[in-house]
Amino acid sequence: MRAATTADLPRAAGELLAALRERAPRIHCITNSVAQTFTANVLLAAGCVPSMTISAAEIGAFVESADALLVNLGTFDGERREAVLIALEVARHQGKPWVLDPVLIDRSSARAGFARSLLAKKPAAVRLNAAELKALGGDPEPAAMRAFAAQSGTVIALSGATDRVADGAQVISFSHGHPHMARVTAMGCAASALTAACLTSGKDAFTASAGALLILGIAGEIAGESARGPGSFAVNILDALFNLDEATLAKRAKVS
Amino acid sequence: MRAATTADLPRAAGELLAALRERAPRIHCITNSVAQTFTANVLLAAGCVPSMTISAAEIGAFVESADALLVNLGTFDGERREAVLIALEVARHQGKPWVLDPVLIDRSSARAGFARSLLAKKPAAVRLNAAELKALGGDPEPAAMRAFAAQSGTVIALSGATDRVADGAQVISFSHGHPHMARVTAMGCAASALTAACLTSGKDAFTASAGALLILGIAGEIAGESARGPGSFAVNILDALFNLDEATLAKRAKVS
Amino acid sequence: MRAATTADLPRAAGELLAALRERAPRIHCITNSVAQTFTANVLLAAGCVPSMTISAAEIGAFVESADALLVNLGTFDGERREAVLIALEVARHQGKPWVLDPVLIDRSSARAGFARSLLAKKPAAVRLNAAELKALGGDPEPAAMRAFAAQSGTVIALSGATDRVADGAQVISFSHGHPHMARVTAMGCAASALTAACLTSGKDAFTASAGALLILGIAGEIAGESARGPGSFAVNILDALFNLDEATLAKRAKVS
Repeated sequence: MRAATTADLPRAAGELLAALRERAPRIHCITNSVAQTFTANVLLAAGCVPSMTISAAEIGAFVESADALLVNLGTFDGERREAVLIALEVARHQGKPWVLDPVLIDRSSARAGFARSLLAKKPAAVRLNAAELKALGGDPEPAAMRAFAAQSGTVIALSGATDRVADGAQVISFSHGHPHMARVTAMGCAASALTAACLTSGKDAFTASAGALLILGIAGEIAGESARGPGSFAVNILDALFNLDEATLAKRAKVS
Repeated sequence: MRAATTADLPRAAGELLAALRERAPRIHCITNSVAQTFTANVLLAAGCVPSMTISAAEIGAFVESADALLVNLGTFDGERREAVLIALEVARHQGKPWVLDPVLIDRSSARAGFARSLLAKKPAAVRLNAAELKALGGDPEPAAMRAFAAQSGTVIALSGATDRVADGAQVISFSHGHPHMARVTAMGCAASALTAACLTSGKDAFTASAGALLILGIAGEIAGESARGPGSFAVNILDALFNLDEATLAKRAKVS
Repeated sequence: MRAATTADLPRAAGELLAALRERAPRIHCITNSVAQTFTANVLLAAGCVPSMTISAAEIGAFVESADALLVNLGTFDGERREAVLIALEVARHQGKPWVLDPVLIDRSSARAGFARSLLAKKPAAVRLNAAELKALGGDPEPAAMRAFAAQSGTVIALSGATDRVADGAQVISFSHGHPHMARVTAMGCAASALTAACLTSGKDAFTASAGALLILGIAGEIAGESARGPGSFAVNILDALFNLDEATLAKRAKVS
């Protein structure tokens, strides 16, 4: 399958959302304890089935029966590190897609080093922010992002006031969402989990990653319209994601 | 004390709720990190005092000063496993009631094996869903549930679109709640914690378990009436549980 | 700098809030997994940047690039204990302020002992409730609190229906907030994190600690006015904190 063109993305995102609701993919998330609850609730609101164990004794079994894997490096500890390596071995062996979220690697060289070793294992996509991209050696400027994606052999999905997604051949940008998204913990982590979910659709990784960020961005835009602050925003975005339909996606999406 | 008959359950549930608010029992929860926050908030909304440490160095002291114990196997790891064994030793020695929640044992044979070893230690109740019941060797069909409860020497409290509670002598069913309950993480885990809380009332384990599921189901039914999606549903159910009174329980409950 | 007098506190609290929003201080929180999400969201709503790793391999780097540190003892385990000692070494070496939150030390003598050893390391402030203060050897009565603060060489910030803050020279009290604050998990933990944030302002530790409790208390008072229960209260307090301004603080504050 070849990636969606810019014009195709809103429709593709609608198809991704419909696929999640119909197939209820199982997404195994190795993620930090700050982000676990909100990430699970975002996946559930989108129709997916999350699981989150990090026990070495059972993570292999969970990844085997999952459809995609998220590896998020926030609140990293020894047990999570071991769990990541076991989970990736299972995912590689079974050809399951996985997403790397190198949370806050700009704050710790040890974490950044581990993230680089994971990038070399070829995730289907890396979801991150600008500071994290720079800490990996990339740059948010479109041509530089495409070059970095080509060199890394993965899709780079950058979140921010403007979301930008690149693979080696193309870049796409959009500015949905709301400033409150930066005032609710785990919003980026949840975007990474939704990216993993969209990778189970059979669409190419560029379309799945861009679609996931577009879906969450438009849910955020809707949530922001009635939010009184970041508390109600976090509630509203789950409701908006649950209620989002293809027509609303098509009507609101502005992609370039 | 003998168990409530079907007709008695709504009134018994009202008494359970009143007892929680009056006595503020301390419920120690060994539970997964995805579920901790929501579980604590459900217990607090019902009038209880939650604690959640899993440190081997202090869990004995916490269980000693608690009124009931929850053992939930989600995101299981080595430290939690050790904590469970220490906690159960204290609970057994002091005759404190405890609830087993064998989360997602249908996904991992290692976890299912551990759950079976815990079931042999005779929890007062096991709260689970249909897939988890089957993984333990049971079946959701009423007569089979009663037989499984008899054989296990415990109360089996099954959540789902229809909740069903059995001990060796009787089965009771009701269908309150709302589909959003399956779209909010930790809803089942919270039901298990509330079951542990109701076991502190002095009522028999069948009545306490059925009453806990009835209370949460009716709170969910009320929450669903004004929810705009699973985000606002999770907020509403805490409000509904906090505000639930015996008259509302009696008016809404449909038990068979 | 000398501490705010009673009359000065509302204005000082307004300045603290403005400073958080302008400078976006980085607050590293070693806190229990029950409290992490809500604590992060309170810090974000106030304009701060939270981080929460407890991995020994990276906590040094995180504390080095943070502006203040919170040490919360809830759900304590071996890894967190090690992380605390590493983090405090870095904080001490760099002169960074830190807050101790001795959660539930009245329930475990092992935890109480560890809390006393940390108190000897001179946190800038200790945020706790009455039972925890007594377990440390203090007392909530004003003169006794001042004496305990003098003897411990720190600020004691007590939360409850009445908040009270003491250093060796002065005591201040106020009764904002709402009863729902005791029905939402992690409210005290979040107050401790906000105290750590306010310590980055350059104001003395007494003013920063009292200001933090006043800010959260008034946000709670506002949140309670439209809450339908503890679920909506937890949402509302984040919105209220985000929207709180100096004029509202000045108008509502009743300090003695």
